[in-house]
Amino acid sequence: MAKVLEPKTGKPEFHTVGRRIPKLDALEKVQGKAAYIHDLKVPRMLYGKILWSEHAHARIRKIDTSRAEKLPGVKAVITGYNTPEIKTGFFKDNPVLKKDKVRQFRDEVAAVAAESEAIAEEAVRLIDVEYEPLPAVFDPVEAMAEGAPLIHEDKDSNILKLPWKLVCGDMDQGRSQADFIVEESYSMPWVTHCCMGSSGCMAEFHANGNLTVHSPTQIRYLAQRDFGDAMKALGLKGKRVQVVNTAIGGAFGSKLDTYPFEFITILLAYYTGRPVKLVFSREEEFFATPSRQKVDARISQGCKKDGHLTFREVEMVLDNGAYTSWGATTPSVMMMPISSLYKVPNIYYEAKCVYTNNIYATAMRGYGNPQATFAIESQIDTLAEQVGIDPLQFRMINVNTPGEITPQGFQIGSCGLKECLESVRESLDWDNKKGKQDGRGVGLGSLIHVGGGARIYKSDGCGTIIKLDDFAKVTVMSGATDMGQGSDTVIAQIVAEELGVEVDDVIVVMGNTDMETWDVGAHASRTTFVAGNSALFAARKAKEQILDLAAPLLQAAKEDLSIKEGNVFSRSNPEVSMQLARVLRALHFKTGGTQIVASHFYDPPTQMLDREMKGNFSVAYTYGVHGAEVEVDKETGHVEILKYVIAMDVGRAINTMLVEGQLEGGAAMGIGYSLMEELKADQGKILNPNFLDYKILTFPDMPDITSIIIETEDQFGPFGAKGIGEPPLVGSAPAIANAIYDATGKRVRSLPIIPEKLVAQEDE
Amino acid sequence: MAKVLEPKTGKPEFHTVGRRIPKLDALEKVQGKAAYIHDLKVPRMLYGKILWSEHAHARIRKIDTSRAEKLPGVKAVITGYNTPEIKTGFFKDNPVLKKDKVRQFRDEVAAVAAESEAIAEEAVRLIDVEYEPLPAVFDPVEAMAEGAPLIHEDKDSNILKLPWKLVCGDMDQGRSQADFIVEESYSMPWVTHCCMGSSGCMAEFHANGNLTVHSPTQIRYLAQRDFGDAMKALGLKGKRVQVVNTAIGGAFGSKLDTYPFEFITILLAYYTGRPVKLVFSREEEFFATPSRQKVDARISQGCKKDGHLTFREVEMVLDNGAYTSWGATTPSVMMMPISSLYKVPNIYYEAKCVYTNNIYATAMRGYGNPQATFAIESQIDTLAEQVGIDPLQFRMINVNTPGEITPQGFQIGSCGLKECLESVRESLDWDNKKGKQDGRGVGLGSLIHVGGGARIYKSDGCGTIIKLDDFAKVTVMSGATDMGQGSDTVIAQIVAEELGVEVDDVIVVMGNTDMETWDVGAHASRTTFVAGNSALFAARKAKEQILDLAAPLLQAAKEDLSIKEGNVFSRSNPEVSMQLARVLRALHFKTGGTQIVASHFYDPPTQMLDREMKGNFSVAYTYGVHGAEVEVDKETGHVEILKYVIAMDVGRAINTMLVEGQLEGGAAMGIGYSLMEELKADQGKILNPNFLDYKILTFPDMPDITSIIIETEDQFGPFGAKGIGEPPLVGSAPAIANAIYDATGKRVRSLPIIPEKLVAQEDE
Repeated sequence: MAKVLEPKTGKPEFHTVGRRIPKLDALEKVQGKAAYIHDLKVPRMLYGKILWSEHAHARIRKIDTSRAEKLPGVKAVITGYNTPEIKTGFFKDNPVLKKDKVRQFRDEVAAVAAESEAIAEEAVRLIDVEYEPLPAVFDPVEAMAEGAPLIHEDKDSNILKLPWKLVCGDMDQGRSQADFIVEESYSMPWVTHCCMGSSGCMAEFHANGNLTVHSPTQIRYLAQRDFGDAMKALGLKGKRVQVVNTAIGGAFGSKLDTYPFEFITILLAYYTGRPVKLVFSREEEFFATPSRQKVDARISQGCKKDGHLTFREVEMVLDNGAYTSWGATTPSVMMMPISSLYKVPNIYYEAKCVYTNNIYATAMRGYGNPQATFAIESQIDTLAEQVGIDPLQFRMINVNTPGEITPQGFQIGSCGLKECLESVRESLDWDNKKGKQDGRGVGLGSLIHVGGGARIYKSDGCGTIIKLDDFAKVTVMSGATDMGQGSDTVIAQIVAEELGVEVDDVIVVMGNTDMETWDVGAHASRTTFVAGNSALFAARKAKEQILDLAAPLLQAAKEDLSIKEGNVFSRSNPEVSMQLARVLRALHFKTGGTQIVASHFYDPPTQMLDREMKGNFSVAYTYGVHGAEVEVDKETGHVEILKYVIAMDVGRAINTMLVEGQLEGGAAMGIGYSLMEELKADQGKILNPNFLDYKILTFPDMPDITSIIIETEDQFGPFGAKGIGEPPLVGSAPAIANAIYDATGKRVRSLPIIPEKLVAQEDE
Repeated sequence: MAKVLEPKTGKPEFHTVGRRIPKLDALEKVQGKAAYIHDLKVPRMLYGKILWSEHAHARIRKIDTSRAEKLPGVKAVITGYNTPEIKTGFFKDNPVLKKDKVRQFRDEVAAVAAESEAIAEEAVRLIDVEYEPLPAVFDPVEAMAEGAPLIHEDKDSNILKLPWKLVCGDMDQGRSQADFIVEESYSMPWVTHCCMGSSGCMAEFHANGNLTVHSPTQIRYLAQRDFGDAMKALGLKGKRVQVVNTAIGGAFGSKLDTYPFEFITILLAYYTGRPVKLVFSREEEFFATPSRQKVDARISQGCKKDGHLTFREVEMVLDNGAYTSWGATTPSVMMMPISSLYKVPNIYYEAKCVYTNNIYATAMRGYGNPQATFAIESQIDTLAEQVGIDPLQFRMINVNTPGEITPQGFQIGSCGLKECLESVRESLDWDNKKGKQDGRGVGLGSLIHVGGGARIYKSDGCGTIIKLDDFAKVTVMSGATDMGQGSDTVIAQIVAEELGVEVDDVIVVMGNTDMETWDVGAHASRTTFVAGNSALFAARKAKEQILDLAAPLLQAAKEDLSIKEGNVFSRSNPEVSMQLARVLRALHFKTGGTQIVASHFYDPPTQMLDREMKGNFSVAYTYGVHGAEVEVDKETGHVEILKYVIAMDVGRAINTMLVEGQLEGGAAMGIGYSLMEELKADQGKILNPNFLDYKILTFPDMPDITSIIIETEDQFGPFGAKGIGEPPLVGSAPAIANAIYDATGKRVRSLPIIPEKLVAQEDE
């Protein structure tokens, strides 16, 4: 049960907001009734399967599909040679079916559609591909070198042309003012999302040429736009694309882009004239879903004797893999902690994304922030030690404060970082436990993240349509996406609170581009804030309509009326009251009657970063502090987490239980990232594409999480709330690394912090 | 190809309205992709089956379900004894599972849910019921007699307490003014809807207690309300009921009410905790779906020497069957032609609906109007003959005219009856062919029907929500129901016309109570008018929003802007123009952007009939004339239709092809009603529950239909349109009977006019 520190202004009298309401779909999911892409089956449906490359880098000499085509039950075999070219990704550098050459082991070389999965698998095995291997490069530094094999021969370098450079203040001055400077290198591995629900989709063309894609995507509107490329390639420009969400079995950024497999499924559906479903096996999910990328960072920070930071300088090299998805844009978010975690007047940041023959990189919860924060916050401890200030005290000296404008131009509104630090200090018994180095230790890691949208696209908005029926049941059609985080529940609570009805009276319908208005997607911890505000404002409009029309019915002034617990009532005379359902029926059941429908499109006043990478990227910023107490076995290097605390400024907890869920789920991912997760590759080939060899935190590994919810009541958030989806994993790695250092005196600068590194002689 | 007579005002320049656009779902249906209730299959679904009564009237002594319960695969066996009582129907006189006694052969005695249809059928056979037969009554006149067996023992009479009496003017005066009076009796048989898609539904309870029913119902919102009775009985009051339409394989009124089988399916789903589907076999569809009722009418009309009608008097007895569905309310519509077809100053009408042990009666296309019009229009010919005036001329003398207020209080707006008569005269070559009695003959039958809604419920309204996306694709969410008539296409055309886009850019989404706003249902030929107006006004609001926001973009005054063919343009300066899609993206893709959503609830200013059964029932009235030329084989009595013409005042044909479809489809039903259709019963038992013994018109029987569309541009209809769903069958029977009389001199006053009646000695 979370401890909630309410804003000093006191808590308004909420009926629904702040309550511990189980996720609305919890029972459906527990009872196995939720329909995932794996459950979807429609008449005449075929099964798709992809043939992957056998080389990291090779020319395709010949593809012979004749044996596959002859297999009974095979309805289509497609390659880059018998289909129109479609390219995907941020730079459109990824042909959905590879022609001429492959650039990574997971490249799509051919695909089939067949009457059963077994036939499709067999057919894929019957496709013969003749390759001519090419020299490959698997290290981004080597890939940058003169003469390295070019991954894309139409480009003159393996270095992507991207604007990832941020300069704030005067770095020379920052260095010269510093009494202490620390410079280090950090490295972070490939990790992957490990969604319980693997990737997949089903595509079907209608008789009129329109396309419907069922998909667990996080971005159904951007996917709708992207799939338009397939329609164009097929000569169906102008036809409608409908994207329908199935239940999403986790996403965490893995379903934030469109990928070749989706276009392949569309092509198979087109050429067979039948619905085609393609779902990744667990092994494919591991090696074919883009991952959080490998990052090498060089970081230096300096401060005065009194602990005030004077500069921060970070240079990074990111392994982009062979193609460009959102992974290449994560430096835009890495900049955020680099520029704005603590008050640092002078900032330099530069990142290079480099093509290699490795797997390619996409978005993953935190979107670069965990990598940057691991480096920053590990080093803050080192710097504090050099200055001789307690690391928590050191952070307090540099703490962010409400009203601050950071060097990158972020306008910090609500900010509870100080309260988070204080809470973690108390919770960990910091003052008594810090600095013993007796095999036990405490450590912490602060974080900043966007909490009020993030303008990464021309619109950062979300639309909502609300209707009320004759029984005062509310339908909220929201552009948002619930991928398990409980957005539907949070939106239902917001609407119920505003309309004065019970959460049970509200359903939230999401998941069909034909029905709901646009939303940019479930990313950047934006849904509670943006979709929540959209729903709130739509509900407010609906309420206005109701009170307008109810006033004559109740013979009261509209301004005097309100709605609570399903009743419209006069605030000045509580005896004047009517059931909301009765009011709605009275408005409807008469000649010229009406029903209540309201809609709102909310686009937050976020700014796109300018050419200098500056601007108020989000309307609100979420702060938090992770704290850990660990015990390290000196002989085996085994790390036991004795206590784990996350204090998070969430603005307002709309649903305390769901915030806890985010904190606990984030901690599980964050601890895994810190101590065990790593996708291992040898010459571009993934070595551990299964849960036996890729270690994630399992239930027995999971410590109890102490959740401390700080409410700062953000002025722009719905009922004061800020986004909380990603932050709960961002501070884990430095908190644990710092606690390990406190326990052992050993500083590990590469993740994951496996026992081998702790029993090694050198710091890593 | 229909002949279209446009209004004299000339036709506005439409882009889409009036075009011959194939039904939007035509290809899906032809390709077998539309999903009917028969196609629906979900995981864990069970199959329901009903045990029907073996007697027309009997006490239930005992129901032994033990053998059925033991059958492997059976999941529930329910009866009236182990389930809460739920009653359905207009008078709530129909228990969904019969207890104590059965009142007709189609009574529901028990039901099962099982893993397969075969098991369910077997289980039903294993239920043992002990009956004690009771005296039964099958003739409504006998049922009215003193001492007749009471169908419902809690009632003191078999005569239903209903207000079906209409008196207008002064009947004594009407009789005394008449120089000629004819008095006759007419009788009309049971006929049934013969939907290709038989009845059925699927019910499923969600983990939270909410209920979803998939159903081809015509009235999903009233069904939603009705199913609330089941929720109440199950202790789930306040939970949400969602009704989702499957594709509807015809309805024609048969799916206008809720019936015991639907509640039984809900009960089975509740007690098994699994989705249950129950679909009628063809035989069940024939005997268990309520039908158009048997009617006996006594009618007299009188006129002056100059042909002016002075009175009309009609008394009817309707066989209600054992329970009360909409069939008992059809006299409310029978009144319409009786009071308002031609100018008749003095009117008397009375109808009695009588319980019997026969099958019960529901709505069917025309809703009583075909029965009444057969009597009226057959007799008009007899009366005209007595006066010595050509029957067409006789009708012209009494023709309805625009602006007229009829004795029942109908305010006739647009009225093209005169033009219809003229068109049929010309089309049939009336003046040359009439009156030869040489085995060939011509005849006609006029009609009036509601064409602008009909207030049978507290609301006659329909809601629409419209949204436009970034590609100027339009989604129209309409409360209306398409049961094959093409409402989606008509609504798409109306919206496309108003918004200046192509029909292909519009999709119309109907069929989910959770998503769309309310509509009373697909009945009374109201959808084009009411749902059409709702869509039109919603589109107009959307257009207003677009032009408001586009004005600054195009630097033009809003009033000067319009939209045509997907472009927003200045009317005064055609060079100022921008693609609508570009405008929408410009409005969306900016900070604080928006998307266009508009909604409208349209409830027509129709009046409920008052206690005297008077009032302006509809906002517009549709007129038409059926004409036939027949050849009758004197020896066999075989009737060959040489020519069939329907002239119909539709106000405005939104889609000429679909109007033709209605005229042709209506004619097929009307000719079948006239010449062959009859549901035959012996002591309450249906003798011909299959298409072998129940004769409908098949393709070779179908004459070519000459469609003449008269456009009178109704002032209240969307683009001038009036409803056209039912009228195309209303005038068939009198037109054919009159043509047969003209050919043979034989007047047949009972339907169907089978050859036996024509070779008989007496008039029938």
